[in-house]
Amino acid sequence: MTRISIREVGPRDGLQNENPLPTAAKIELIDALSETGLQRIEAVSFVHPKAIPQMADADEVWSKVHRNAKVRYSSLVPNVRGVQRALEAGFLEIEVVVSASNTHNQKNVNRSTAESLDDIAELIAIAHAANATVEVIIATSFGCPYEGNITPGQVGDIVDRVARDGADRLAFGDTTGMATPTRVIALLEHVRAWHDELPMLLHFHNTRGTALANVWAALPLGITEFDASVGGLGGCPYAPGASGNLATEELVHMLEDCGYDTGVDLRALLEVAEMAQRMVGRKLDSGVLRAGPRLPF
Amino acid sequence: MTRISIREVGPRDGLQNENPLPTAAKIELIDALSETGLQRIEAVSFVHPKAIPQMADADEVWSKVHRNAKVRYSSLVPNVRGVQRALEAGFLEIEVVVSASNTHNQKNVNRSTAESLDDIAELIAIAHAANATVEVIIATSFGCPYEGNITPGQVGDIVDRVARDGADRLAFGDTTGMATPTRVIALLEHVRAWHDELPMLLHFHNTRGTALANVWAALPLGITEFDASVGGLGGCPYAPGASGNLATEELVHMLEDCGYDTGVDLRALLEVAEMAQRMVGRKLDSGVLRAGPRLPF
Repeated sequence: MTRISIREVGPRDGLQNENPLPTAAKIELIDALSETGLQRIEAVSFVHPKAIPQMADADEVWSKVHRNAKVRYSSLVPNVRGVQRALEAGFLEIEVVVSASNTHNQKNVNRSTAESLDDIAELIAIAHAANATVEVIIATSFGCPYEGNITPGQVGDIVDRVARDGADRLAFGDTTGMATPTRVIALLEHVRAWHDELPMLLHFHNTRGTALANVWAALPLGITEFDASVGGLGGCPYAPGASGNLATEELVHMLEDCGYDTGVDLRALLEVAEMAQRMVGRKLDSGVLRAGPRLPF
Repeated sequence: MTRISIREVGPRDGLQNENPLPTAAKIELIDALSETGLQRIEAVSFVHPKAIPQMADADEVWSKVHRNAKVRYSSLVPNVRGVQRALEAGFLEIEVVVSASNTHNQKNVNRSTAESLDDIAELIAIAHAANATVEVIIATSFGCPYEGNITPGQVGDIVDRVARDGADRLAFGDTTGMATPTRVIALLEHVRAWHDELPMLLHFHNTRGTALANVWAALPLGITEFDASVGGLGGCPYAPGASGNLATEELVHMLEDCGYDTGVDLRALLEVAEMAQRMVGRKLDSGVLRAGPRLPF
């Protein structure tokens, strides 16, 4: 049975796109997730509170989380200042984002992709000096809402650069749900021809219904790491260009029924999805949460 | 480029599960769909109006539809009485449903699967005598909400029987969204080992997010026929056990981006999805309708 490693991104990527929750609720959510069998949780991000007020209490959240020794916790940082905060807080797994689309990168972090790559080189050196690892998340890997299609070659150039600069892991982000199975296969075949040495994770949004099809297309290529967000936290179905993270319970539900081992207790996970739904105060966009699993527990 | 044949089931399977629409609206919907490039439309069903009031005006709808010569129209019938009405109305493509789950069949049509199969044999003979063809739709092919898992062997037994009785086509219905890719592959491999002579269509519901993954899993097995419902008509997201037909625009959007030829004009189809949304008066559960296609037109 193939083991699939799911990283839960609800507390960070999810909550960053919801109305701010009280600090205690964030801690409760992370702690509940850590008891479901999930082995990886993206817990917080260390960003400027003016840019992302939802993460203003990252230090307090992280200091009060009950850390489960079986779980790998990571934090996202935007820049060198952020990585210093993350390391001070004790994180050993750091994530940093750069967008394959220059326009998206400009709008996201107000600098060019090339400038971000220079920052990331410096950031990796700082993290490595503190014995932490760095995952580089390449946003808009499958398309950009401003620039349109992104080619595997564009993404591959970024991979070349960050691999040279010492990135420990890669993630390909489908930031606005533009990935389809053929694009997933094309990107993976291109990148892995050159960089099979780096672990690769896929991060899909279900904006246009393709998230699980993309997962299914990636599995035969040996991909075993996926991001997902409990309850699909982070996508508001009524917002223009709704983002819609893939719901963790939909991913677990499909994979387990297809004979993959996620290590996750779906029943426990659904209880956390219900908790997340109560916390954000709206019906979350998750089929397995709404309809329940295909067979009753 | 592989040609995919999509049958649009919104006017029948979709509207049957919505609040009843005025007759004129149904006609307008069918006529609009017939101008999108869709080549097949399930237009109406000839069922008892007490059982399904949404289809009480089937004869009037069908008599007033502007029939596009490029479109194959079909109707669903529940029994011998229904097939006579369908033939009188001029349909040459008839669909009939039987459930692989005996319990589901009992609840659905108040008789056993075996009794339904006897009726279907008679119905096929009547249709053939009138030069019409019959597609047998096997409901709950991937699981039943009452009986749980349904094995490929159970479905295969029904296929054996209806093939012997002269069925012209088969469809496998994922009636309550219990299909996952591995189950799709297992069923197709089992059935096609014995009945490769019959055209086979897959009908998925997106209840648990797996519909497009199921499609993607079926394509390498040579399946080229799928049902879908414009706007995902027919699934109410707030109903218990929400059914959720796969939205036609999500299917077209993914397939076309992956190099398949559906013949459908997505822009025109999205206009019809918006029309359908106005008609039923609620936000439909379709990502491509909500967010638009991955690239602007």
